[in-house]
Formats: sequence, C-alpha cells, structure tokens
Amino acid sequence: MAPADWEVKAERCRKILTDSMNPEWLLSPQDLPPPEQLDVSTFIDSCKLLTPRELEITRTDATDLVAQMGAGTLTAVETVTAFLKRAHVGHQLTNFATEFLVKESLDAAQKLDEHFKSTGKLVGPLHGVPISVKEHVGFKGRVCHTGYVAWTDKIAEEDALILRILGKAGAVFHVRTNEPQSLMHMDCSNPIYGATCNPYNRKLTSGGSSGGEGAALGLRCSAIGIGTDIGGSVRIPAAFCGVYGLRTTALRNPYKGVILAGAGNESIRCIIAPLANSLADINLFQQALLDAEPWEEETSLVPLEWKPTHIQPHEVTIGIIWDDEIMRPYPPVLRALKYAEAKLKGAGVKVVDWAPLNHQEGFDILSALYFPDAAKTQKDILAEGGEPIDFLTTWAFGLAKPEPLSLAENWEMNVRRENYREAYHKAMTDRGVDFILCPAYMGPASTLGGGQYFHYTSIWNALDQPAAVFPTGLKSDPKIDVADTEYKPRSAAEQREYSKYVPETFAGAPLSLQIVGKHFRDERVVAATDMVSKIVQG
Amino acid sequence: MAPADWEVKAERCRKILTDSMNPEWLLSPQDLPPPEQLDVSTFIDSCKLLTPRELEITRTDATDLVAQMGAGTLTAVETVTAFLKRAHVGHQLTNFATEFLVKESLDAAQKLDEHFKSTGKLVGPLHGVPISVKEHVGFKGRVCHTGYVAWTDKIAEEDALILRILGKAGAVFHVRTNEPQSLMHMDCSNPIYGATCNPYNRKLTSGGSSGGEGAALGLRCSAIGIGTDIGGSVRIPAAFCGVYGLRTTALRNPYKGVILAGAGNESIRCIIAPLANSLADINLFQQALLDAEPWEEETSLVPLEWKPTHIQPHEVTIGIIWDDEIMRPYPPVLRALKYAEAKLKGAGVKVVDWAPLNHQEGFDILSALYFPDAAKTQKDILAEGGEPIDFLTTWAFGLAKPEPLSLAENWEMNVRRENYREAYHKAMTDRGVDFILCPAYMGPASTLGGGQYFHYTSIWNALDQPAAVFPTGLKSDPKIDVADTEYKPRSAAEQREYSKYVPETFAGAPLSLQIVGKHFRDERVVAATDMVSKIVQG
Repeated sequence: MAPADWEVKAERCRKILTDSMNPEWLLSPQDLPPPEQLDVSTFIDSCKLLTPRELEITRTDATDLVAQMGAGTLTAVETVTAFLKRAHVGHQLTNFATEFLVKESLDAAQKLDEHFKSTGKLVGPLHGVPISVKEHVGFKGRVCHTGYVAWTDKIAEEDALILRILGKAGAVFHVRTNEPQSLMHMDCSNPIYGATCNPYNRKLTSGGSSGGEGAALGLRCSAIGIGTDIGGSVRIPAAFCGVYGLRTTALRNPYKGVILAGAGNESIRCIIAPLANSLADINLFQQALLDAEPWEEETSLVPLEWKPTHIQPHEVTIGIIWDDEIMRPYPPVLRALKYAEAKLKGAGVKVVDWAPLNHQEGFDILSALYFPDAAKTQKDILAEGGEPIDFLTTWAFGLAKPEPLSLAENWEMNVRRENYREAYHKAMTDRGVDFILCPAYMGPASTLGGGQYFHYTSIWNALDQPAAVFPTGLKSDPKIDVADTEYKPRSAAEQREYSKYVPETFAGAPLSLQIVGKHFRDERVVAATDMVSKIVQG
Repeated sequence: MAPADWEVKAERCRKILTDSMNPEWLLSPQDLPPPEQLDVSTFIDSCKLLTPRELEITRTDATDLVAQMGAGTLTAVETVTAFLKRAHVGHQLTNFATEFLVKESLDAAQKLDEHFKSTGKLVGPLHGVPISVKEHVGFKGRVCHTGYVAWTDKIAEEDALILRILGKAGAVFHVRTNEPQSLMHMDCSNPIYGATCNPYNRKLTSGGSSGGEGAALGLRCSAIGIGTDIGGSVRIPAAFCGVYGLRTTALRNPYKGVILAGAGNESIRCIIAPLANSLADINLFQQALLDAEPWEEETSLVPLEWKPTHIQPHEVTIGIIWDDEIMRPYPPVLRALKYAEAKLKGAGVKVVDWAPLNHQEGFDILSALYFPDAAKTQKDILAEGGEPIDFLTTWAFGLAKPEPLSLAENWEMNVRRENYREAYHKAMTDRGVDFILCPAYMGPASTLGGGQYFHYTSIWNALDQPAAVFPTGLKSDPKIDVADTEYKPRSAAEQREYSKYVPETFAGAPLSLQIVGKHFRDERVVAATDMVSKIVQG
C-alpha cells in the first residue's frame, strides 16, 4: 500500500533533517545508550565524540564564550563546531532537531573569525554564540511548517526579524528544533518527527511547546535557544530540562516572521524569548536584541530599551504560591518550594504566602481567547494535512467553546482580561509583594503525551506578566517524594491530574521554579531570578 | 400629545445642564449677539460680564496661570471664577456644555487656595487650572450617556482615571462638554443637546467628536480641555476652532473610565488627549498625567515617561502632503500649506513633498475595524433609546461592511493594519522624513451637519502615529480663496465633498494644519509642532 499523502510530506521533512546532518558526528547505534537508559544527561561528556576542549567549550555559557573570543583565546569555528557535534549526539539521545545548519553556521563562524583576525574586534555582543531556534521561526528559503503537514511546502520569504538582529550581533544559528502539533501542548510531539524526550528521564517529555529547545539547552547543545510562549512554551521546557527560560511581557521582543496559525488574533499574544544556561546569557540575549531597536521595523513593539538591573535580598518581598487552588502540586514540587522558602528566609529575603487571585478566572479567559473561533483555523489546517490528530491537540482545542465567539463576546472577554490584569497588579501592590515564587508546573515534568495542565505558567500569559524559570538544583526522588495518598482532589480534573503522580515515574527530573514580576518589569524579573536562584542553588 | 420617551429622557439631561448653571453669569437674550452674527469669537471680551482682570486671566495659558498662582499673585478661586463666567457666556454663544460644575469647582479652588495659604506651596503642577471634560469621560455619581438617550440613566461608579490623576495634580474640572451621536461625526450634534457651533462662524460646526471642547477652547472658556480621538476627534475640533490638539500614540494616556460603545474592540483604539491654547500647556498636561505613572493602575498602558524635548529648524526634514489622493483640499487649506511651506523654508527647515502611501488602504482598514460587528452594538443602543438617528450616524455606520466580520476576517484586517503601519514607518525612514505636515481636514471647517471626510486625521489613527494640530494664524477668506472650478474630482465621493466648497460659507474659519510623527514619538511631535507653529505664525 502506498503511504498516505501526509506521510510522503512528513518523510520529505525528515529527509531534510537527515540530509542536514554531518554523518561523522553521529554515533553508531551500538555506541548510544540503550533505550531503557532513561537518564542521558551526562552521556555526552563520556561518549568521546567531543574532545575535552570541545566539552569545556560546551560547558561554558555564552557570556563567557564571547569574552574568550574577545580575548582571542577561542575562535567562533571552534565554538560552533563543538556545539554542532554536541547537538548531533544530543539529537540522537532526545530527538530534538528538525534541521541542522552545519555548513551555514560554520561559514558564518569562519567569517566572524576573519573579521576578528583582521580588525581585532568582535562583530557584536553575540559574536560566535551558537543559538538554536524553534522550527516555526522563519528562515529565509527554508520550510517553515509550524508542525503542520499541510504547511510543509511553505517556504519563508525572509528571515524572522529576531534572526536578522541576532545575526548582525554575531549569533550563529546551528540547529532548528522540534515543536508539538498545534503548538499548544506542554509536550513536544508531532507526526513529522515524533516526540522529543527529556534528557534526565527519557520516559518524560522535554516539555512544550518549545520542547526541542528544552532538550537542546538541557544537554548544552546550544549556548542559547529561541522559543515562543503563549501559555508556558518557553518556561515549561526550560523547567523540565533544568535550564533558565524567560517569558517577557508582550510587545517587547520582535515577533515578526514567526509563523503561527491565527495571525492577527491579538487577544492573547504569543511572545518570543530565550532559554539559556545562565541568567547572564538571558540578559546578554535581551540586551543585544533590544539595543537593535526592533521597534523601528516592527512598529507594534514598545520602544523600551533593555536595562538590566540587580536586586539585593533585603530589597524585596516574595510571595509564594503553594497551590493555585485548582491543581495541587505534586510532592517533589512542594518540597522544592519549601526548600526555596527556607533558603530565601535564611538569606534575609522577606517571604510571605501568596493567596492566588482567582486563577480560574485566568483559565476561563485563556480558554475563551486561545481559540475564539472554536479552533476552526487550526482544525482546517489539520484537515488539509490529513495527519493523525494527537490526543493533546484535541484536548487543547476542547478548551475553546464549541461555537466561535461573536465579536461582542470576544470584546467582553478582552474587557474581562484587562480587569483581571489590573486586579492582579493591584493585589501585588496592595499586599506589598514584588515577586511571586511559584511552580512552573504541578509536577517536575510530565510523561510523554501525559501533561495537560499548564496553568501554572499560562496564568502569567493571561496576565501578561513577565516570568522566568530556574533550576533549584534539586531533582525528583521517589524515595523522598512519596505520594500523598491523603489528599482529596477538589475536582474531577484535579483527580485526573493528581493521580498521574507516581513517584518512580519522575525519578531524576529536575525541580524548577518560577519567578513572576509585574507587567513590563522584565529586567526586574531577570534580576530577581538571578538573586533567588543563586540563594536557592547556593 | 405626550412627548416620546426619548424626549423625556433628553429633557431630563437638559434640565441637569440648566440647573447646573449660575443664572447670574448668563446674559439675557437681548445682550447676546443676534443669531445672524456668525463670528462670536471676540464677543466675550466686550460683553462686560467679565471684569478686565477676569478677561486677562482667561487670556492666560495654563502654564502661566500656574506660575502666577505659585508666585501668589493669583488665586485658584479667581481663576476658576473667571473661566466659569466665561464658559457660561461661551455656552450661550455656541452650545458647548452638557453640565457645569460650579459649586464643585469653586469648592476645589477654595481648598487649593487654603493649601497654598497654609503651606506656601502649590498642590501640584496643575494647581488651579480649569479643565473642561468631554461628556463620555466618567464623573463619579454623574450621568455619563456618551450621547445616547438609552444611556441617560447610566451613572458612573467612579471618576475616570485621568480625572483622578489630574485632580490630584491640582486641576479643577468646571464644565463637561458636548459630543455627537455615536461619537463618530466630525461634527457635534445629538438629540439631547443639539449642535455645538463654531465660535468663528456659527454656520460651521465646532468639529467633532470632541466638539464641545473645540468651542470651549476656541473661546478660552477653559485653560485645557480633555477630548478623545479615534478618527480625529481631538484634532478636528481643535483645528476648526483654532487651538492646539494632540493625538497621542495609543496606550500612553490613561483611558480607564471613558465610556464608549464596543469596549474591548482593540483593533483600533480610541485615545484621550488634550486640547489647549498653547503647546506649553499640552506638555504641562502630559507631564502631569504621565508623571503619575498611570500604568500602575491601568496596566495595559505602556510605562513610558513623558520626556518633553526641543527641535531646532535645521535638525529635521518635513514632508508635506498636498493632497491625500482621495480628497483634494479646498483652496484656503492649500493656501495655508503653501504659506507654511514658504515660512518653513525661510526659517531653514528642510521641506519636501510627501507622496501619500496608499491612504485608501488606511481608509479600508478603518472602515472594516471601526464597526467590525456591522455597528450592531451602536445600532442596538440607538434602537433602545428611540431617538432620531442623524444622517451622519447612518453615514458613519455605512462605512462598515453590511454583515459582521468573522473573527478570521477581523484577524486578517489586524494583520493588514500592522503591515500598513510598518510600511508607512519604513517609508518615513527610507525617505528621511521626520515629520509630515498635512491638512487636518480638506476644508477649514465643515458646515453644521455637513462634514463627512475625516481621513486627513483618521489615517494617523489607522497608523497609530502621534499627530498635533496648530492654528496657522490665517483665516478662510472668500476674496482670496476662490473656488477652483477647473478641478476634476477623481471619484463620485470626491465630487460630493469637493462641491461643498462655497467660499462665502467658510468665511472667517481659522486655517489649521497638522504635524505627524512616528509611533510613540509623541514628545517629538509636540516639539516639532511648537517649532513649526512658531515659524508659521511668526
């Protein structure tokens, strides 16, 4: 029997991926860890494909790499080569890539080195930094399908603005990464490439929707990653894979050239932002991006420069969300929160409990506004493609009302959204809370195809508040994090999600937490996350 | 026959107005100019109701008034009394008021004086400045009907944010002002209060929709006025009445508490902004407003401080729009443009022609987005009220498609709007043009009920670019501004509008022009308008 049309198209994309790899940097199957080996987080360090020097390079953060290149002790070609090699193996371990850019990135690195050699100067603040990019960020002349088979012959007409800016700042794009069908899963699987898994436990997802980025950063296969976030899609993969991830306020970072179904729906905006292995790198990325004044091209952006700052422990009050009153966090996450609380108090930070302000309202708003047309836009694209529809896709579309909102209903929801945003902001001000510390998810990660509740992150999209996730340094441990069999879920939905906690399933998953600030105070969120993460990890 | 329900309700509102006046400050009919006297712009100066001192006070701009109050040479009660008296007569001349706030404003002034007496300090930067306010800006405990009979029993639950902020800065609100039915006329008439007319020629409109403000400022019945603008509603009345008016970029000034049908429709945003008799006062107003950080309450606002600036003639290039290629300006407006061009060139400003960038596209976008629901929202309110529907209302609703847009169509239009904004911004950058000088309307003003084409202002709403109007000092003169009988209109619509130019009709109307800048560069627009207006008037 001939393969279905959609399979032919999917196979074409897989061939682009396969053809894009350098076979010399791929391990043969017998040299890879066996499928039953779940934790592959340290495999690359011992696999011998990378030289000790290359391992050292890939352990270095972007800020430091640039400093070394500026001092002339490291070249861009060395750097990019090291990350490319690491990314090849990393992809073999977790299936995170959709396309490698081997020749392009090495050519770019070569030019950077020539520039440095002839001028003694770096091209820009991201000189030689290997950056991975989520697939739906358009690359000129390349397929950009956003996870839809129907779109697999769509070729981007120009580079997304963010790529043009970062490229001018010296960044090198070496690999494009996976995303889930519909882009609305906290998971990373689609019928084209299959699932990306978590480097710390391959029975778990790397998160989503920027799950390819999560795995890439978790394995240090890129120095910085570019993800997008409309409900947690940067923060969830960053949290699941134990790295840093930022959700900026909307209309700060240049979004032009990102391909998403439903363009022009402005009720809840998707944003583009970095994942990284240090907060210095998050600042480096943001500074380079906004110093380029992207609002001169993408005029809907707000002309606010990036002004990094520092926050001392005694300067702020942090409110902790222990439970959003919809879905109780699993025991390991509660342990991480308690651990963080104790550390913060010990360091002189004023910590208080934060009673959530009707997170159900935020959920209702998002449910109405993600797919105001009852997901007709997305369903039509899937129908055109003909690929199988994932359970999580159906589930996400099911959040919407069965019939499209009328314009008046949409406007009413916009008003409710604004009122809710103002009320939350006011509550923070009235209670004297500068930042909120909360879970990034009710669990440490979710199983492949198993995560459904993303409202610990999406609440901040509803509110358009900036938020960052950071690793606590702790990991999920079945011996410590025993199931709480006493707990009585408050709803059928909570029963469903809470019952997914089986301690052994989550063994080894990094425990990450989230810091949330006020609308447009993105720099303060990064500074607070820096202060808090150092205390918690210290 | 008993009056219709709507008339009873309208009469109730008129009674609120009548009851709000101080009869001692009203002239008896025989002391007023006869109806056939069209130009009443200087009547108040000679009517003897105001003392010479009061005339002097009302000739002074807000910036100077505050300085005098700070020096102790003027009291707030004197100031507010003078403007209240002037406003009473001004209203008799042009019908601009919907409610006087005599007691409230004098009580507030009294308190300001007591504060100054006891502390030697002003309450804030707007200490004692009498400000008039367009009716649909909510005042706590007062009717706020937005020109709809159906809403005449709506009582605002709190003061609009802008009033709370300005009140804290010392502003005194002494009169509320008229607006047209539906708020979508460049005219100022509704079935409740009738029409507001132009102080320079009472056969002409004061403009709209903030037409009450236009007349009030034109007659110096308030020091500063608060209007709103979604298509020119601040700038048109300011231009018609020979004062300054600003349209800020959206999301800068606090809009919370303004009552408008279709709240939550964010595709084209209405903004709130000042009319004034000097650009110093525009800066004073904006500075006081944004120094209060309104984004701390209305979180959708962009946290951009107001940073006034200055621009020298040689620093900028100004592009002139002589004709938007849809509706040719009438002869007096072309004369004003030529006059301004010559003055600017003489002062060393680089002036070039600006070929409009497809203003029809802007018109199509607005036509789709003003009433995406085919104006059902507004039509329902009018049907509920039962009042007669004005020709201009029907005409404005007729801009919309006959059927509501689908969500997908609305989103597509949003995308077109963004593309158009980016293209216009890019054209300004590519052509090296910093500001655009253009008409505020094709004519000097329009006749009562006669103006239909507001796209010389609304184009900048489509583009969300800041714009300000200023008086050139010239006036329409039938002897000079003879009709151009050679001109062949390019369309039936242009034929309709162009044929309305009968030189005698517009005699004495002030000739104003508009300066437009780039998105979010509001302060630069004010600075450029200051520079340009001084040169043109000089």
